Amino acid sequence: MADIGRIVHEVAQEMAAHPERGEVASYIPPLAHVDPGQFGLCIVTSDGVTHAAGDAEEPFSIQSVSKVFALTQALGKVGDTLWRRVGREPSGTPFNSIVQLEREQGIPRNPFINAGALVVSDVNLAGHEPRVAIGELLRFIRYLAEDETIVIDETVARAEQETGFRNIALANYMKAFGNLTHAAPLTLGVYFHQCAIAMSCRQLAMAGRYLMLGGLHSPGGARVISAQRARRINALMLTCGHYDASGDFAFRVGLPGKSGVGGGILAIAPGKAAIAVWSPGLNECGNSRLGTLALERIAEATGWSVFSPSGSGRS
Amino acid sequence: MADIGRIVHEVAQEMAAHPERGEVASYIPPLAHVDPGQFGLCIVTSDGVTHAAGDAEEPFSIQSVSKVFALTQALGKVGDTLWRRVGREPSGTPFNSIVQLEREQGIPRNPFINAGALVVSDVNLAGHEPRVAIGELLRFIRYLAEDETIVIDETVARAEQETGFRNIALANYMKAFGNLTHAAPLTLGVYFHQCAIAMSCRQLAMAGRYLMLGGLHSPGGARVISAQRARRINALMLTCGHYDASGDFAFRVGLPGKSGVGGGILAIAPGKAAIAVWSPGLNECGNSRLGTLALERIAEATGWSVFSPSGSGRS
Amino acid sequence: MADIGRIVHEVAQEMAAHPERGEVASYIPPLAHVDPGQFGLCIVTSDGVTHAAGDAEEPFSIQSVSKVFALTQALGKVGDTLWRRVGREPSGTPFNSIVQLEREQGIPRNPFINAGALVVSDVNLAGHEPRVAIGELLRFIRYLAEDETIVIDETVARAEQETGFRNIALANYMKAFGNLTHAAPLTLGVYFHQCAIAMSCRQLAMAGRYLMLGGLHSPGGARVISAQRARRINALMLTCGHYDASGDFAFRVGLPGKSGVGGGILAIAPGKAAIAVWSPGLNECGNSRLGTLALERIAEATGWSVFSPSGSGRS
Amino acid sequence: MADIGRIVHEVAQEMAAHPERGEVASYIPPLAHVDPGQFGLCIVTSDGVTHAAGDAEEPFSIQSVSKVFALTQALGKVGDTLWRRVGREPSGTPFNSIVQLEREQGIPRNPFINAGALVVSDVNLAGHEPRVAIGELLRFIRYLAEDETIVIDETVARAEQETGFRNIALANYMKAFGNLTHAAPLTLGVYFHQCAIAMSCRQLAMAGRYLMLGGLHSPGGARVISAQRARRINALMLTCGHYDASGDFAFRVGLPGKSGVGGGILAIAPGKAAIAVWSPGLNECGNSRLGTLALERIAEATGWSVFSPSGSGRS
Repeated sequence: MADIGRIVHEVAQEMAAHPERGEVASYIPPLAHVDPGQFGLCIVTSDGVTHAAGDAEEPFSIQSVSKVFALTQALGKVGDTLWRRVGREPSGTPFNSIVQLEREQGIPRNPFINAGALVVSDVNLAGHEPRVAIGELLRFIRYLAEDETIVIDETVARAEQETGFRNIALANYMKAFGNLTHAAPLTLGVYFHQCAIAMSCRQLAMAGRYLMLGGLHSPGGARVISAQRARRINALMLTCGHYDASGDFAFRVGLPGKSGVGGGILAIAPGKAAIAVWSPGLNECGNSRLGTLALERIAEATGWSVFSPSGSGRS
Repeated sequence: MADIGRIVHEVAQEMAAHPERGEVASYIPPLAHVDPGQFGLCIVTSDGVTHAAGDAEEPFSIQSVSKVFALTQALGKVGDTLWRRVGREPSGTPFNSIVQLEREQGIPRNPFINAGALVVSDVNLAGHEPRVAIGELLRFIRYLAEDETIVIDETVARAEQETGFRNIALANYMKAFGNLTHAAPLTLGVYFHQCAIAMSCRQLAMAGRYLMLGGLHSPGGARVISAQRARRINALMLTCGHYDASGDFAFRVGLPGKSGVGGGILAIAPGKAAIAVWSPGLNECGNSRLGTLALERIAEATGWSVFSPSGSGRS
Repeated sequence: MADIGRIVHEVAQEMAAHPERGEVASYIPPLAHVDPGQFGLCIVTSDGVTHAAGDAEEPFSIQSVSKVFALTQALGKVGDTLWRRVGREPSGTPFNSIVQLEREQGIPRNPFINAGALVVSDVNLAGHEPRVAIGELLRFIRYLAEDETIVIDETVARAEQETGFRNIALANYMKAFGNLTHAAPLTLGVYFHQCAIAMSCRQLAMAGRYLMLGGLHSPGGARVISAQRARRINALMLTCGHYDASGDFAFRVGLPGKSGVGGGILAIAPGKAAIAVWSPGLNECGNSRLGTLALERIAEATGWSVFSPSGSGRS
Repeated sequence: MADIGRIVHEVAQEMAAHPERGEVASYIPPLAHVDPGQFGLCIVTSDGVTHAAGDAEEPFSIQSVSKVFALTQALGKVGDTLWRRVGREPSGTPFNSIVQLEREQGIPRNPFINAGALVVSDVNLAGHEPRVAIGELLRFIRYLAEDETIVIDETVARAEQETGFRNIALANYMKAFGNLTHAAPLTLGVYFHQCAIAMSCRQLAMAGRYLMLGGLHSPGGARVISAQRARRINALMLTCGHYDASGDFAFRVGLPGKSGVGGGILAIAPGKAAIAVWSPGLNECGNSRLGTLALERIAEATGWSVFSPSGSGRS
């Protein structure tokens, strides 16, 4: 595994020097001021060893990466009945599109577009106060990452609440079709706070281990979810995790991954590694520009693509 | 590997007895008369051993499964310049939708929807007579399958030519956007004949070995395509291979696969197996109903999902 | 003009006895309980004479018919600069569709679909409290109808506010594109109250006179708007006044008209008559079923279609 | 009527000197070479008097203006059963859009978009050879215009056949839905030839008289169609005659009109005038730029808008 350490540092070095860093998301004001020069990377391998480089300890807004943990939480609550309210297909449209909702009568195409994540928040709310549901999700993520210092960035949460008109539109639109059980402001409250969770690459990679390990918390650890559920969440990440660039990410990187507009990406090499990468500049599809490139380099160097013959001798 | 033989027979038995078989495709007249009671299955494992059951020797119309081989052929001709003319994203719409083409100015979303496959045929035509391009594809498939008896079903090809109005529309529509270099009837001629290739499950599984083996023709054999290209074709099969049910197939089966309306599916477990399954009855998304179910059973029994931790000890 | 009186009574009689009355709008609870057996009709001719029959004095919820008066009010405030924020084309989609807004970046296609009417409400709000804007509109309508008894049905307004999730979605969606200057709840407050204005057929026909009279309040009366503006509002009513059934209404009736889901329709025969008709049962496009039929009969009997050669000797 | 003559000449003079003339249609090669400096205008009033100015005798390709005459011909053949195969609503999309056809299962929204006109051609073909149907339409137009010199421009017809890929796509797409009874190339043959009819403004205005005169061939002449049918064709021209700019044309001009990409427009002031205008430069919606402006001027100067109070004393 010495190789992994070397790869992590080489990739971090290349990215630190890369001239084209993309555009920082501007529609959530506090995110607009993040320094685009930053790059962080952390890999946890299946033996539990952590390899970090660059700004791997710097907390950033995980935004839509939180949808993976919230989905896991919702499946724990209602199991496969979730799929009556949200689909499992790539959307073919941008992350915040409302067109598909009209065509398909208020049923979002998958749990990783905003509309689908709002349904997931609605499930997690489960009749409680928003802060109960948010607290529960935060505790779950802290448990996964083995880190009690993970918090919500209230400045970001407030900014989302003040400017998240498209999300308010999506929630009310689904409410009109009967696919929201709580008052829209309550569900939106859960959603906005979940997006505002701040984590470092190290914390995020640690929190993603259960998806690498077939549902186990850590090597030899407790079972968080069944092996089948872990496989299925990975499948959804691969087909839907990068919005309308999911096909391209699968083509270039070949790993299940979920991106957020804060510039973070969580990628999973099943049985091999959980990878967190962060760089705030985004490409035209809203995914971290250098984060995607870094994962492409890592997949190449390690041979971890899920589409490679296994036992390739390189890992 | 004795297990694989047992699994193949058990699955074939279960499917032979299954009461709900779906609807045979009716829009291509010769396909409408195929007996829905049939079910064939063949698995070639990475050691080259073949396990077959049911109607595994019965030739059927491979239809859109041919798009995998035609794509491989086109990438061999023009390399990554192909991606200037066709995308790599799931479509979010049915296989024969024309809506996306209008929105995206004549560029099909991926090479596995009909419009994208027409662009691939246009590339393969390369200024020759249609029969030259078709002959070349047929020779390529015979070489992959090591079987010179594979032929085109001319009755099916003629029927497609007489009733394929939507495909004629798609070709002319792309022509209007300048994304077809030959006269539409020539490109369509290649496409209709390619869809009419008839293969048995055994032949199809053999022909798919190069995608399991990182691009090698057979265990220890010659290189057909690079390892990277094999990975990428697998990635496209996973995200786009089942039209607007690709997400569900990834969720349930977890393997790259390409289906055809003749009822065949080619699925790849990288490094482990190439699987061909056939049952003519289709589900509402146009994919083989029992074929999909059989692959779900096989993935479960073998643990071959690309989303499982590898080295699970089961294969 | 004796003829008009006879036509009014004959049509009212035919409609009273008509067996198929359509479905009463159910999504706004107080409207769902309106007796579908009712039918009212009132025609004011260019000489100021009123002909009424049936339930012509019964107040009903004018709903989207209010969009005509609100548009007139907004054009008075901001003139043709309104058209920077809303288009003038038929939508090709249902009245509450959000799809078009996404395609056209938050600019509604016309002021008579809900999204466009919300922009108009936003203009009329003009930085004041919602009740100021509503009061102003109500005064304008009372002045047009010469009737101080016209009021807002607060039960209906409250019900709209509680269940109008699609309108809330539309408002927030436009806010996201910067096409709403006030907080969405304020603009929605104006809109919901405007829709809840209750008027009888007599009041509505009287209020519509200015559109028949080239912008004059009443025969020989004061000018409300310019002749050009009156023509243009009539043009918009003809091309966009019946949502996605506007073409059919023009084809069958041939008069500018605006319908509401309360079952009312205001139709204008320029230079000849202002016509208000009401029957609560709707057809599949959300327009009054018997109201439309009654207008078809009236247009036939009077020759008032704007598409007839004038000087037909019948009016 | 001396006024009309003066208006015609003043408008022609203003347009001849106008600096911004739009872009000549380039996708049909022979049309691309037409001199954009030309402008013709001819008005026939209800007394049969003709007023012409500018290049009013110059023949041009009438293109989509032919759809009015072809629709009249088809309604004569099959009456209102035509409406089972084509709608009567504005499309909300460009003239050659195929999106709407997919959503509405092969039924075009109206007879004036290309898909709808293809259905009309299919009706007119009626089992005969294309040249029979074309000959019949040409005879009908010559009869209406009282001019035997009107011919088809074979160069244009051939160019359309060679480059009309979107129309070929539309025809085949409807064929796939069963909404084309003849082989697509036959129906397309009729359509392409009909579009290639060449007429001068004088000929076109004369041919349009029946729509001004409630269905009569000429003042006091024979009945061509019923008064109701004339009204209804006018209604369709108003709501659908300028593609996705029909609402704007109604707003600005206020007359039923049909435009063609050759730069011609036929407009009808019912009971008052038939107006033909021609200038080859188009605006961004594909309608004659100066033609539209000229009609706006004429409608203003004459008070002929169908949305004005009649008896305005000006005509």
